[in-house]
Amino acid sequence: MNTFGEKWAFTSFGESHGRAIGGVLDGVPAGLCIDLNLIREELTRRSGRTPNMVGTVSEGTDPRLYPVPDATLAGVSSRAKNEPDEVEWLSGVMDGVSLGTPIAFIIRNKDARPEDYEWLKNTYRTGHADKVYEQKYGIRDWRGGGRASARETAARVVAGSIAKQELATKGISIQARLIQVGAEKDPARFNETIAAYQREGDSIGGIIECRISGLPVGTGEPVFDKLQAHLAFAVMSINACKGFEYGTGFEGITQPGSAINHISGGIAGGISDGSEIVFRCVFKPTPSTKKALTKLLNDQINEPIVNRQIVNRSDACVAVRAVPVVEAMTALSLVQFL
Amino acid sequence: MNTFGEKWAFTSFGESHGRAIGGVLDGVPAGLCIDLNLIREELTRRSGRTPNMVGTVSEGTDPRLYPVPDATLAGVSSRAKNEPDEVEWLSGVMDGVSLGTPIAFIIRNKDARPEDYEWLKNTYRTGHADKVYEQKYGIRDWRGGGRASARETAARVVAGSIAKQELATKGISIQARLIQVGAEKDPARFNETIAAYQREGDSIGGIIECRISGLPVGTGEPVFDKLQAHLAFAVMSINACKGFEYGTGFEGITQPGSAINHISGGIAGGISDGSEIVFRCVFKPTPSTKKALTKLLNDQINEPIVNRQIVNRSDACVAVRAVPVVEAMTALSLVQFL
Amino acid sequence: MNTFGEKWAFTSFGESHGRAIGGVLDGVPAGLCIDLNLIREELTRRSGRTPNMVGTVSEGTDPRLYPVPDATLAGVSSRAKNEPDEVEWLSGVMDGVSLGTPIAFIIRNKDARPEDYEWLKNTYRTGHADKVYEQKYGIRDWRGGGRASARETAARVVAGSIAKQELATKGISIQARLIQVGAEKDPARFNETIAAYQREGDSIGGIIECRISGLPVGTGEPVFDKLQAHLAFAVMSINACKGFEYGTGFEGITQPGSAINHISGGIAGGISDGSEIVFRCVFKPTPSTKKALTKLLNDQINEPIVNRQIVNRSDACVAVRAVPVVEAMTALSLVQFL
Amino acid sequence: MNTFGEKWAFTSFGESHGRAIGGVLDGVPAGLCIDLNLIREELTRRSGRTPNMVGTVSEGTDPRLYPVPDATLAGVSSRAKNEPDEVEWLSGVMDGVSLGTPIAFIIRNKDARPEDYEWLKNTYRTGHADKVYEQKYGIRDWRGGGRASARETAARVVAGSIAKQELATKGISIQARLIQVGAEKDPARFNETIAAYQREGDSIGGIIECRISGLPVGTGEPVFDKLQAHLAFAVMSINACKGFEYGTGFEGITQPGSAINHISGGIAGGISDGSEIVFRCVFKPTPSTKKALTKLLNDQINEPIVNRQIVNRSDACVAVRAVPVVEAMTALSLVQFL
Repeated sequence: MNTFGEKWAFTSFGESHGRAIGGVLDGVPAGLCIDLNLIREELTRRSGRTPNMVGTVSEGTDPRLYPVPDATLAGVSSRAKNEPDEVEWLSGVMDGVSLGTPIAFIIRNKDARPEDYEWLKNTYRTGHADKVYEQKYGIRDWRGGGRASARETAARVVAGSIAKQELATKGISIQARLIQVGAEKDPARFNETIAAYQREGDSIGGIIECRISGLPVGTGEPVFDKLQAHLAFAVMSINACKGFEYGTGFEGITQPGSAINHISGGIAGGISDGSEIVFRCVFKPTPSTKKALTKLLNDQINEPIVNRQIVNRSDACVAVRAVPVVEAMTALSLVQFL
Repeated sequence: MNTFGEKWAFTSFGESHGRAIGGVLDGVPAGLCIDLNLIREELTRRSGRTPNMVGTVSEGTDPRLYPVPDATLAGVSSRAKNEPDEVEWLSGVMDGVSLGTPIAFIIRNKDARPEDYEWLKNTYRTGHADKVYEQKYGIRDWRGGGRASARETAARVVAGSIAKQELATKGISIQARLIQVGAEKDPARFNETIAAYQREGDSIGGIIECRISGLPVGTGEPVFDKLQAHLAFAVMSINACKGFEYGTGFEGITQPGSAINHISGGIAGGISDGSEIVFRCVFKPTPSTKKALTKLLNDQINEPIVNRQIVNRSDACVAVRAVPVVEAMTALSLVQFL
Repeated sequence: MNTFGEKWAFTSFGESHGRAIGGVLDGVPAGLCIDLNLIREELTRRSGRTPNMVGTVSEGTDPRLYPVPDATLAGVSSRAKNEPDEVEWLSGVMDGVSLGTPIAFIIRNKDARPEDYEWLKNTYRTGHADKVYEQKYGIRDWRGGGRASARETAARVVAGSIAKQELATKGISIQARLIQVGAEKDPARFNETIAAYQREGDSIGGIIECRISGLPVGTGEPVFDKLQAHLAFAVMSINACKGFEYGTGFEGITQPGSAINHISGGIAGGISDGSEIVFRCVFKPTPSTKKALTKLLNDQINEPIVNRQIVNRSDACVAVRAVPVVEAMTALSLVQFL
Repeated sequence: MNTFGEKWAFTSFGESHGRAIGGVLDGVPAGLCIDLNLIREELTRRSGRTPNMVGTVSEGTDPRLYPVPDATLAGVSSRAKNEPDEVEWLSGVMDGVSLGTPIAFIIRNKDARPEDYEWLKNTYRTGHADKVYEQKYGIRDWRGGGRASARETAARVVAGSIAKQELATKGISIQARLIQVGAEKDPARFNETIAAYQREGDSIGGIIECRISGLPVGTGEPVFDKLQAHLAFAVMSINACKGFEYGTGFEGITQPGSAINHISGGIAGGISDGSEIVFRCVFKPTPSTKKALTKLLNDQINEPIVNRQIVNRSDACVAVRAVPVVEAMTALSLVQFL
């Protein structure tokens, strides 16, 4: 339910506006030197506050990060900009080295503002999980999406960073990057594209490509536990992700076998073949926009009470901040096979 | 590894040209009346021998099955045409009713012809899993792909049919159909398209759409075990599947949030919202074609020995026969949530 | 439910008087040479038909097997004596070597005599699982206990023997033996003790001791997955087993810490310490005896209909035949930690 | 590894003298009213500081708790007496009601005194897990046993109390009590027995009996997942537990089937039969005693450096404080079957 993986079992917990979010990562081998600064950097990437996201393309050095054109951090929500994600490490690490015991950590919700969401107490937003939560559980934490909030992905990024550090010791690296925003495929124009939608009070989707290199031959199992199935499972569990493809993908549909039978996408019969693995995933635009007239439902009578512009703290293009989350889930998926 | 699911745990076994393939389905509640004829029909759909696949479109009644224009069963392999998949039931069923104990079944490999593959003993085919198996296991059943053969999907269809029958008792139905073959989106032209590729000694991919109706609100878990993640995992585990999308998918990438925030695809926050679920998946063309010059490797020296035309028993468009397999895996995925 | 273990996942299936019992053992590494004769011998040990169980103690060579004094095989049921347990191997093995794919096997129920149990159709026996099955499932295979029959343990012995063969390649050996029958602790008198109870139409329990040697330091996990917890789980899942102890066990209760703090029983903090592991388990007498007046219940009205002597095909001392089953479950438990 | 159960998945974390111990309990249904006072009381029972453990038997009202004769709390370690176990609730509960999301909690290690254990940095104690940890992980938290410390059981008691509260809503209750200390079976004499061993600087074991009432018929699975196997697994995972038995157990070994075939122990064929379930488990004396000369090993040269009296903070009879832990693990085991 809230645990991902078995060999490296990552349990995530916490509501968006509760006391804290956090996680327990069990299965990390003893003796791994954990670079806490790297984890901080990953959280900064996820927050959208990363320095090299403010500037121009030419200044960018990290191919993963497409700069945001000005200090207003186009398209990034206010909470992301303001809340430092400070990790408190509770167990499993001594003097920067893993003990082989569960690594538990928490991130306090410092900018939690339940009062901002008071009006949601008896209301559902369309495009959100408000209503299904109420239907499924009979109770729901209405404070900013509660458990359904993408804030939960901060815990994934922490655990995923540890997984990436373990993979790095084996020469395996993972790099995701945004390759498309709306119809735009030129990274140099991503920021202005996002900013344009934001000015309209609207939102837009994006496509992320992820490359895995250094993965040894033989990773994955031939029948149900195919490597691509596990990668799809990991990535499709990220909020707002609507599709996954690898190798020839959907785009290869018009090509005959004789033309593309040499393209493995890095996987044959569910098992890595030693070449680079490339997959793509698509993120929908956030439904919480100023422009969108969101239908609100009264949860007592389950009928629309008003169509209302939602002005909340969401991003204009969630795909931007999903980049490190895709890497994190990819890493957490791969370490299961070590 | 070879088990799918936990509540309904389906274990698949068997090599393509060994003594038998089969499966064990554990977790089926006691008292389910199992219609063995329905299971036979599903196997016939998978075999490509189904009667209403020979005829014209206008005669077709089942929207899932697009007729093959003539009795030669365009694009279907010789083994599929010749081998009756007779199921022997070993346990778990008494007088047609499930006992609540594991249901075990086998399908004997009657048309097994290991001698047809003798030449593969020291040779790998590109586009197949021959080489990675050897690398992963140090040993491999070279007889027709062994465990990697799509023949294994017959066991999935048997188990999936039982799952569908259980779902049907709860008003849940699953219908998959081929919606695209190569660039062709008109079902009336699918057969001639496939036949054209086959005449060229080539192969082509296809896209399958699957619809789930009647699924109650609340199916799926909010964080890692999102319904879409599990569906993707199930479908991506099918041989030759290269991509999965639902709701707005990859195609929705150009639409802003204000235009599409009402489209849930039947799932919100990982949980079914009570509306119909629609997903699509893409199957690549088989690499074993007459036209394709397949690079063969000598497994002793790991170097190409010859580029050779592969004339074996594969289909021209594997997506055709994947339709019931997609339904089966969807059903096996859904019953885990009951 | 019917699967034991995750790394080596053993799925058992089959009803006592159905078509076959069998199993699927998934996770066996490729390349293990499997000695089918050893498996046959283990099945013979379980059947009670083993040659060196007929003879005198002095002739015995295998310390595990205590000879039965005469050719009548005291205390062994008629079915065990008459039914050869022939294993048909369906998959996962090629030329005697494991392929790394699931190993499936079946044992046909040749001596199945459902008609012997016809009278049980509307009747429950006390001391058996007849009634709880009916209550749990609403349906039950009344033929000789169906799934609850100890016949199921034959499949465990087959899988356990493969596990033992893998462990042997790593220098790990498992030896169980009967150390007590009723109050009798002298092995030389076990047969006459059992025979005496059998003559009375009665049954008696036994204690089995099991020793594991060669297990490397570090096996087991420190918190929930302690080695002793997993061994207890494995052994307590055997029919008629009522208790498990290791190290100082129940008997050490009167000794102070200063006297016994050096006795680890081979395990410290849940983790093997490199010394021999010794545990004991107790098996109750079978409830199906000639002497016992078993209360029979009419399953329609759930009231006693008669107190009746049960003359069926059970053993006088089930602990005798449980010896190889204890070894099998121990082996299946240990391979999970490899 | 550090997770118990699947439906109610309880993950435990934390080192004895690290920053905190804690846990995540996932799978608690939404809407359970959680009585935090009850949880505090359970922690007090585990700490040995419970008021009715000081006094005389006649004053006792709770049959589970045998009073300690004077205010010195015979046999209870100094840490247990001094450290209040305050639970901080991080997630999953809103206004005292469970949300259906993971319940995370921590207990800070306020009385952590790593410096007390500084001398253990390069030393192993016999009877403890010091050495196997070092061998297994290559690194170890030497501070008071680290992860191997029984302090971890506080987290089990918190989670177990929530499980008991859920079970109580279904009419299921669990009561464990100490029934034997050393050779002493009269509860009125337990305290003086323990005090006598303590005066000698020694320690002693105990037997705990646990009764489960109200469990509906049908709990447990017939083959591997027998109810007794799961109870044994749960209880044998508690530190210092050396044996488990139920029903006729080891003691029934001398009784023939005709005499005891009516005793089910509440379970038939692995499935609860509706009657009260009774099991017993035995706890060894702690190896850390003043009297015991514990062999200490230099971990560099792996040889004895000194035989030394260990004067640390352990209990004279750990079975006393294990009583609520046995209940907790029993509860956590049972909720898996709901």
